Amino acid sequence: MGGTMKAVRFHAAKDIRVDEVPIPELKPGWVRLKPAFVGICGSDLHEYEDGPHIIPPKGSPHVMTGEAAPITIGHEFSGVIDQVGEGVTGIEVGDKVAVQPTIYDGGCRACKRGLTNSCDSFGFIGLSGWGGGMGEYTTAPAEYIKKLPKDMDLKIGALIEPLAVAWHAVANSPLKAGDAVLVLGGGPIGLAVVLSLVAKGCKNITVAEISGRRRQFAKDFGAHHVVNPIEEDVVQKTKDLTGGEGVDLCFDAAGVQKAVDFGLESVKARGTFVNIALWGAQRVALNMTHMLFGERKYVATVTYVDGDFEAVIEAVHRGDLKADGMITKVIRPDEVAEEGFKALVEDKENQVKILVDMSKAKEVSTTK
Amino acid sequence: MGGTMKAVRFHAAKDIRVDEVPIPELKPGWVRLKPAFVGICGSDLHEYEDGPHIIPPKGSPHVMTGEAAPITIGHEFSGVIDQVGEGVTGIEVGDKVAVQPTIYDGGCRACKRGLTNSCDSFGFIGLSGWGGGMGEYTTAPAEYIKKLPKDMDLKIGALIEPLAVAWHAVANSPLKAGDAVLVLGGGPIGLAVVLSLVAKGCKNITVAEISGRRRQFAKDFGAHHVVNPIEEDVVQKTKDLTGGEGVDLCFDAAGVQKAVDFGLESVKARGTFVNIALWGAQRVALNMTHMLFGERKYVATVTYVDGDFEAVIEAVHRGDLKADGMITKVIRPDEVAEEGFKALVEDKENQVKILVDMSKAKEVSTTK
Ligand SMILES: [Zn+2]
Ligand SMILES: [Zn+2]
Repeated sequence: MGGTMKAVRFHAAKDIRVDEVPIPELKPGWVRLKPAFVGICGSDLHEYEDGPHIIPPKGSPHVMTGEAAPITIGHEFSGVIDQVGEGVTGIEVGDKVAVQPTIYDGGCRACKRGLTNSCDSFGFIGLSGWGGGMGEYTTAPAEYIKKLPKDMDLKIGALIEPLAVAWHAVANSPLKAGDAVLVLGGGPIGLAVVLSLVAKGCKNITVAEISGRRRQFAKDFGAHHVVNPIEEDVVQKTKDLTGGEGVDLCFDAAGVQKAVDFGLESVKARGTFVNIALWGAQRVALNMTHMLFGERKYVATVTYVDGDFEAVIEAVHRGDLKADGMITKVIRPDEVAEEGFKALVEDKENQVKILVDMSKAKEVSTTK
Repeated sequence: MGGTMKAVRFHAAKDIRVDEVPIPELKPGWVRLKPAFVGICGSDLHEYEDGPHIIPPKGSPHVMTGEAAPITIGHEFSGVIDQVGEGVTGIEVGDKVAVQPTIYDGGCRACKRGLTNSCDSFGFIGLSGWGGGMGEYTTAPAEYIKKLPKDMDLKIGALIEPLAVAWHAVANSPLKAGDAVLVLGGGPIGLAVVLSLVAKGCKNITVAEISGRRRQFAKDFGAHHVVNPIEEDVVQKTKDLTGGEGVDLCFDAAGVQKAVDFGLESVKARGTFVNIALWGAQRVALNMTHMLFGERKYVATVTYVDGDFEAVIEAVHRGDLKADGMITKVIRPDEVAEEGFKALVEDKENQVKILVDMSKAKEVSTTK
């Protein structure tokens, strides 16, 4: 019982540390796991750069977790079950798992309709409390645990979360056979959208992305066409690729007003523009001429709901969703700031997903 | 053959005149009709106040009609068939009709999919040329003619067009039995949305409208609740009326940024916001927190397509769509500026739809 462990915690902007913290105690209905690999997310970087944003600041604990900074980070992770709490069935010690990190109350009106991603008490394991992937151990309610096949690489298990974001967006869109699709942005989520579209059999995917390296990633991941919006007219190019009509669907993983404008104009009459990007307090300004004359739809999608992790795990296992190429670097828990966040800024073009190898946690020193 | 007739024509902002113009010649495939009643539309007023907007200015003829100002106005109208052109079948002299005034080329990619409201060459009879309702005679292609039942009042026939705008918006929305709906704005289109919702069996309609007189119209037309957004919290009120959840659908017939904000926030998770309003060059700024956390949809709808006029005529004839109350005034063709446009501004609260009685056209004098 008791004891301490290493955990990577957010204290404040530009201040993350490897701390020695108590090993979390198991509660009935919860499980304890040893995180294996943890993806670094754009939102982690955002917290590090000028947060806290989602992380509850000192003195303002999250409504569900009761916790505030310092907070253990890491919400994209795989691991191995270490202890199983009272009353938990169907999960055994030694099971490989991914954690669905979205915290929800289960009782609000949205939750009761299964829309846990719109919960009134919404939060994230690894941002709002309840530990996170960057601890030697972490605990979570059993219903947040998604079992991985025994033969699945735990590195791939850490990709299930970002893949689920993209999969959810695609699965809830009106995508149908024969559709032409434009993806805005070739970062991790844009690329995960490409992978999801390929898995769904989409045969006409165009990615608009400024970076040449990222356009290459997009092609490697299955995009049929790429376009550099700085040098080319995206609207004209998509029309040329669709016999003059425009694309059926546009997925926005860029979150840039200019891209919304040419993306919306690239969508054909009665087509749908799906926003996945996070905008913070910034508003999106819709060109109503494009919206009205063409009766276009602008819809928002966020995270995932029950069933999305399961669908992604199955698609990866079947081989339809080939995500291996997303992993561009594996680092140690004490390298998160220097080799993780810094690389995502300074070596942005070459990095898709950087994983933290938690098997190294025991060896690293706490931050002085 | 030949001869002249009276027509109310737009020359420039604040300058409409009763002119003596040639009676239009019939072409093969077209019909000639004697307009009976013509509704004055908000867009007519908009042209009069500070146009031309839709009306092609002198020197810039419309791509389909080849015409420019001065233009005969009136696009919401009924009439009686006076001549039938070569090759036209199914329409006879003496038939009561309404005219679907949207001009389209029939050949563009949108038209080929039946989306004539998104035509590349889009225009309006009564704004873009081809005559209009405010002439003693007008001609139109036979496919723009929608027959009215013999026993239908020609005054009601002039309401089919604005009703079709609202009907189209409702028919293409995801409205289902049991839905709660918020309508923004109690002007002619907002009220036509209420009538369409009632006709579709909607049992929970709330109208947000600043004017007390218009809120009364909304109640008279079948709205179950009304709310004054200046005095009440619309978001709270709609939540109270839906057990805390928010409305399934919001129809925006107001076109005001503030109303978009509270309208969107009033929509429940995965609900839909339908924009009917015209915004000109103004952009709509979406609060992305409301959009994302709730995965809401913002969709645009404009005018109508084939089948909407027919559905409205049938619903009116069956008695499901009770539109009589919309007519608040009937004026003469030489009163359009003084008793029409001026009343829509100065007596706005009491006016829903003002009709021009074209049977009086013979008696009026041309503008000096
Ligand atoms: Zn909830
Ligand atoms: Zn067309």
